[in-house]
Amino acid sequence: MANYSIGVDLGGTNLRIAAVGEQGNLLEKITLGTQVALGRDHVIKDMCDAIQRLAAKYRASDSLMGIGIGVPGIIDMKTGMVRESPNLPDWADYPARDEIEKRLGALVILENDANSAAFGEQWLGAAREFDDMAMLTLGTGVGGGLVLNGRIWHGMTGMAGEFGHTTVEPDGAQCGCGNRGCLEAYASATAVVRMARETIAGGAAPGLARAATGNAEFSAKAVYNLAIQGDEEARKIFRRVGRALGIVLADMVNALNLPIYVIGGGVVSAWDAFSPAMFMELRERSMVYAATDPEPGSGNGGAAGRVQPGGQTKTIVTRALLGSDAGLFGAARLPMVGQ
Amino acid sequence: MANYSIGVDLGGTNLRIAAVGEQGNLLEKITLGTQVALGRDHVIKDMCDAIQRLAAKYRASDSLMGIGIGVPGIIDMKTGMVRESPNLPDWADYPARDEIEKRLGALVILENDANSAAFGEQWLGAAREFDDMAMLTLGTGVGGGLVLNGRIWHGMTGMAGEFGHTTVEPDGAQCGCGNRGCLEAYASATAVVRMARETIAGGAAPGLARAATGNAEFSAKAVYNLAIQGDEEARKIFRRVGRALGIVLADMVNALNLPIYVIGGGVVSAWDAFSPAMFMELRERSMVYAATDPEPGSGNGGAAGRVQPGGQTKTIVTRALLGSDAGLFGAARLPMVGQ
Repeated sequence: MANYSIGVDLGGTNLRIAAVGEQGNLLEKITLGTQVALGRDHVIKDMCDAIQRLAAKYRASDSLMGIGIGVPGIIDMKTGMVRESPNLPDWADYPARDEIEKRLGALVILENDANSAAFGEQWLGAAREFDDMAMLTLGTGVGGGLVLNGRIWHGMTGMAGEFGHTTVEPDGAQCGCGNRGCLEAYASATAVVRMARETIAGGAAPGLARAATGNAEFSAKAVYNLAIQGDEEARKIFRRVGRALGIVLADMVNALNLPIYVIGGGVVSAWDAFSPAMFMELRERSMVYAATDPEPGSGNGGAAGRVQPGGQTKTIVTRALLGSDAGLFGAARLPMVGQ
Repeated sequence: MANYSIGVDLGGTNLRIAAVGEQGNLLEKITLGTQVALGRDHVIKDMCDAIQRLAAKYRASDSLMGIGIGVPGIIDMKTGMVRESPNLPDWADYPARDEIEKRLGALVILENDANSAAFGEQWLGAAREFDDMAMLTLGTGVGGGLVLNGRIWHGMTGMAGEFGHTTVEPDGAQCGCGNRGCLEAYASATAVVRMARETIAGGAAPGLARAATGNAEFSAKAVYNLAIQGDEEARKIFRRVGRALGIVLADMVNALNLPIYVIGGGVVSAWDAFSPAMFMELRERSMVYAATDPEPGSGNGGAAGRVQPGGQTKTIVTRALLGSDAGLFGAARLPMVGQ
């Protein structure tokens, strides 16, 4: 019998569940809507039902190692409880892991969704073959995850990897976390839209103003579309995204000297618009990056200069490869390595 | 026979050498002047002679595990060469480790001096009993070191732990590393003097102006002396030191969620002047610190709220305990644990 585990990506919109073999081979993937509005118990029942259907199907041929669940929030790894989750408010102070374990009769591990995504990219994505890596996920917020020696680095209370709240501008934009000028306030999809609206309010941004007018769904993607059409104000916004990312990556490279940093999430589709400014800042601000630059003197960088792992001495900064599946695969990986 | 090793702190002024037992017991300490001006070979000869005298003395009773040498510069851990050291310019591209090993016939490990200091504080100082810790050394520059799972975290090329070059103000003061607005440009002794001279040049700082006039040795200590006498301009400078430290510590706590952060170096004697601003920034800027604050709501913090290791859930930020011996003990520890 082959070993497999089940990974769950518990998003605010979709509940995705996958059975994954020990070699990273996908057995089957299910996507359900997350009925968050119907409450915690409803979501858990939907999830457990789907997991049980999957498990029943593979019981005869494969051996289930356990279930990993990526949750958008801060997890207390010891108690298996969700400490804080804006998207899942009624999960706080509820023994989620133990309850799910009881229902399924199998090992269950809860993990922060950004940590799961990092673990997925480390296992099967852009950082496969590397034991040490960090990931930034540029979505509604900016998530972060850190993998050291092939394990997620949790820190003392499971709250490590919050690179999205690194201070970029000490007196900058207010962030939801209480700080000012966090990376998240400059490099998330939410921040792109906020900066676009600020630019529109300042006048002299006709392209952005036209795109936003009467568009209730005005999005980071709309700003990117303008940028690739050459709209200078839209391009400036992505240069600010790149500058903020470059500052934080420089801090990370100086502090950790990892071989690879992976950037994922929806905003990464604007790579061409933000990455030149990002690599420029990184080169100027990190002496450690400058000493390990895969393309010294280049205006570009990173992926193109990729070198083989094992004895490598170049710092790679590159796009994620697994898209929204990173968290799903990372969650499935959790029971395979334990906590 | 008891095991011991020899630690060396190769400073720009003093060359200090200690024989240290496996339990951290000091057998003997020697301090020589570092004759940097006489060149690399002279310094190495002085060092090797002193080490051989020590080793001869303990040969009959103790077993030498090796020699650890803390060097102010960037070390290539694989080759044992000094990559870059402003204080030891003629050491670059010289196989220092191999040469010293050949002369002494014993295991030799070179290590960055700030990493050695962190390792010393982790072994015997403020972070003893903790496997994970980071240290900032506020001296002429700002050094940093990171210990994870009881080992110095070197990163890919041995350049990790450069927390002193974390960006605090993206458009701030030029730093020697090439970046602008590094922690080092606000929290080193050099930075304190620079900020004092800037304040004097701006006028309306009579106390600082008097202290500096005709004082070729005008120092961070002189600024601190004014601060404790209540001079408002001098106090403001240390609040800037504290603010910069608080910003960087917030980044570190969010990223790594370590149980303890140790601050050492000469500037730490001004703890009373800078730490209130430091803790204020840390509380405001790090949600992870806020969730693990040993003294929530307090204007002070850190050391007083120290909790016992093992299951602790509080973040400790505290002063180093070993002073200038931290690097010496840390260097001696290196051969005991290997690289």
